[in-house]
Amino acid sequence: MKTKAVFYHAGCPVCVAAEQNIAAALDPKRYDVEVVHLGSSKSRVGEAEQAGVKSVPALVLDGLAYHINFGAGIEALK
Amino acid sequence: MKTKAVFYHAGCPVCVAAEQNIAAALDPKRYDVEVVHLGSSKSRVGEAEQAGVKSVPALVLDGLAYHINFGAGIEALK
Repeated sequence: MKTKAVFYHAGCPVCVAAEQNIAAALDPKRYDVEVVHLGSSKSRVGEAEQAGVKSVPALVLDGLAYHINFGAGIEALK
Repeated sequence: MKTKAVFYHAGCPVCVAAEQNIAAALDPKRYDVEVVHLGSSKSRVGEAEQAGVKSVPALVLDGLAYHINFGAGIEALK
């Protein structure tokens, strides 16, 4: 049976593509990955909080919340 | 061809197992995952820095460094 993994983000234009790489890299045989934009889906903020999400972007995997910091390269801002 | 993914850590006893979940969740068809303990393998610190790693634990995926904060649950410290 697949585990659900949820990637929560808020649409940071510089970082989100890079951070979604992690969601896309998960094993599709073991994980059903859902990507949730909390800025657009405010009704899901409570669910994210309950899962332990303190900031976005975050990945909830096996019931644990991981906060992922890519730290946009300065090159991306030029 | 598989991409190499490297998970760098320094052996934080509370967090590392949880954080390695992410490394273990990557698709094994697409990624060869290597786990490097920088405390034990100091000769690889330079390589990690060159990949953009500023703190551990970090995952280098497709040439980008992601800093992962699990934030040990307070329960783990009781």
